[in-house]
Amino acid sequence: MKFTLLKTDKECKARRGRLETDHGTIETPIFMPVGTAGTVKGVLQRDVKTEVKAEIILGNTYHLYLRPGLDVLEKAGGLHKFMAWDMPILTDSGGFQVFSLAHNRKLNTNGCEFRSHIDGSKHLFTPENVVDIQRKIGADIIMAFDECPPGTADFAYAAKSLDITQQWLERGLKHFDSTDPKYGYSQTFFPIVQGCVYPDLRRKAAEGAAKFYREGYAIGGLSVGEPEEVMYEMIEVVEPILPSDRPRYLMGVGTPANILEAIARGVDMFDCVMPTRNGRNGMLFTREGIINIKNLRWKDDFSPIDPDGTNYVDTTFSKAYLRHLFVANEMLGPQLASIHNLSFYLWLVNEARLKIEEGTFLSWKNMMIKKLTTRL
Amino acid sequence: MKFTLLKTDKECKARRGRLETDHGTIETPIFMPVGTAGTVKGVLQRDVKTEVKAEIILGNTYHLYLRPGLDVLEKAGGLHKFMAWDMPILTDSGGFQVFSLAHNRKLNTNGCEFRSHIDGSKHLFTPENVVDIQRKIGADIIMAFDECPPGTADFAYAAKSLDITQQWLERGLKHFDSTDPKYGYSQTFFPIVQGCVYPDLRRKAAEGAAKFYREGYAIGGLSVGEPEEVMYEMIEVVEPILPSDRPRYLMGVGTPANILEAIARGVDMFDCVMPTRNGRNGMLFTREGIINIKNLRWKDDFSPIDPDGTNYVDTTFSKAYLRHLFVANEMLGPQLASIHNLSFYLWLVNEARLKIEEGTFLSWKNMMIKKLTTRL
Repeated sequence: MKFTLLKTDKECKARRGRLETDHGTIETPIFMPVGTAGTVKGVLQRDVKTEVKAEIILGNTYHLYLRPGLDVLEKAGGLHKFMAWDMPILTDSGGFQVFSLAHNRKLNTNGCEFRSHIDGSKHLFTPENVVDIQRKIGADIIMAFDECPPGTADFAYAAKSLDITQQWLERGLKHFDSTDPKYGYSQTFFPIVQGCVYPDLRRKAAEGAAKFYREGYAIGGLSVGEPEEVMYEMIEVVEPILPSDRPRYLMGVGTPANILEAIARGVDMFDCVMPTRNGRNGMLFTREGIINIKNLRWKDDFSPIDPDGTNYVDTTFSKAYLRHLFVANEMLGPQLASIHNLSFYLWLVNEARLKIEEGTFLSWKNMMIKKLTTRL
Repeated sequence: MKFTLLKTDKECKARRGRLETDHGTIETPIFMPVGTAGTVKGVLQRDVKTEVKAEIILGNTYHLYLRPGLDVLEKAGGLHKFMAWDMPILTDSGGFQVFSLAHNRKLNTNGCEFRSHIDGSKHLFTPENVVDIQRKIGADIIMAFDECPPGTADFAYAAKSLDITQQWLERGLKHFDSTDPKYGYSQTFFPIVQGCVYPDLRRKAAEGAAKFYREGYAIGGLSVGEPEEVMYEMIEVVEPILPSDRPRYLMGVGTPANILEAIARGVDMFDCVMPTRNGRNGMLFTREGIINIKNLRWKDDFSPIDPDGTNYVDTTFSKAYLRHLFVANEMLGPQLASIHNLSFYLWLVNEARLKIEEGTFLSWKNMMIKKLTTRL
């Protein structure tokens, strides 16, 4: 994998870059649609490519490991072939998901024992086997196994948790570097910077990760309930420490406004379930603001879903039609809204790239954020 | 609307025809995907056209009348514009749906009073206003309002019910002929032949309808629980009575085998929810037989969903992947299965057309029926 930093903004930390993988090139800043279990929910792969214009998608190690399982994925020749997606895939490490299992997980320094949410069966994730699992899934970008403390963790808990994450990082790296790609194309390993809402811990985490000088870095454990300002502050704390010639991936973030603010602070990669999850509930993100398509006000608004949209859905169907689909509980409603929202997120990062290239990112960002947070 | 009978089979009653409407030409025999509430469930309009290769779809008057309602549909300029579908649309008359409301309907000779299944509000359908409603929906082909007796109705009930349907037909026709198309393109009215499972009543119904010599005829009230042989017998009873130069539409039928048997008996048009409804439950119709994709046997079958399929879905995704989507309750499963099944139904009628043209329909049909009813 090769990252080229093409330009850094003069007024803020925004960066324009290019990430080359064996499955294709990714222009950064980039948003990665979430394909939890080998599918971007409700959207055909062809549409993820041609309508959404995604350049990379994310898969969830925890979910894929449980279903369809590694035996199936290996026999298929990896996730790319299994789901018929020939562009890059990044997998998370499962750390966040097993953390979410709360009382159904048992942490020790070796790893984390957990019970499947599907059938209650027992499993163990370790820094080493999580690398093996992601190699077998066939991700282009593999994440380190991390301990995710709750957003409300006190300093002592967060510090102890970071110690574990840092030990696991060393073990994961060692294991990654001593194993080979599974399917003939190269695979890359990103450390994850944790440290909760504590600047000292974040600094320690970033320094501990930076010293390995890997091909990219993730910032984890944010957007988990802390105020947005704290999230931005944590990015500002770690940004100068992370190698500037490596991409930075802010995990699980966020709203369109969050993404622009994080880009302004030097982040290059994003993923979030929000465009699909909120889309399935009838919330549309547009360049004029947020639409709740179920509202009566759209009942006879026959204007296109997004007159400026660049995909088939936005210009073909009206707001009134999309509202009708949601009111009538028709599957097509969530499908169309998911395509729209994902396409909007990809439009947003593409626009950010153009503005960085032009040198007008900061003023554009400030103008956009007002619009993006408006409720129509 | 213009129907041209291109060829009639020498060994059976199968017919190859062409139906021209202001929204395009329909080759018969044809299958019409059901778009109950202005959407073919789970399938984007573009895919109904290019992947399924539908030539006409069906809308449900009862559902569209209640939601989005005629005010919205009229303001949109009709259902075609509302749902962004520029090919032909046939609407049923709502007779079957209000019949299904059982205790929530009140029949009199004027029409049928019923309560909405959505909010309990009271409504009245009459032979006249059902024509008006379908004109406002903007259907290319409009159905007469009929009384649908249950499949188990005794002769006396069925005879009385047919009297009502025949009176309503006269009233509907008179009203249709004295009103104009709503949106500038022509609209056509089909009588519906009822008569339950009683040959005498079916004969009477067919004669009563045939005398008006309309542009097409529907056969209703079949596939509602009676044995398949009885359904075929009823078709055989009415077929010689209906004008041979007019298309015959068998409402709500059926399995792929039902469709081939009905084609062999002179039917030209079909609709059924089976390909989408069963598809959403993981049942796939293929030319080798019926697949329950949830079965364990497909777990690591990486062959295409349908290697002979002519759409994007069939050849892009594997059985193992589709099974995984269903096991994981992913929306994409029902979406892919619906596209596959609809496409298969359209393939089947297309193939029937070719075989009729070649003069090999009957032997092909007999061979196919064995396969189509096999459980894989």
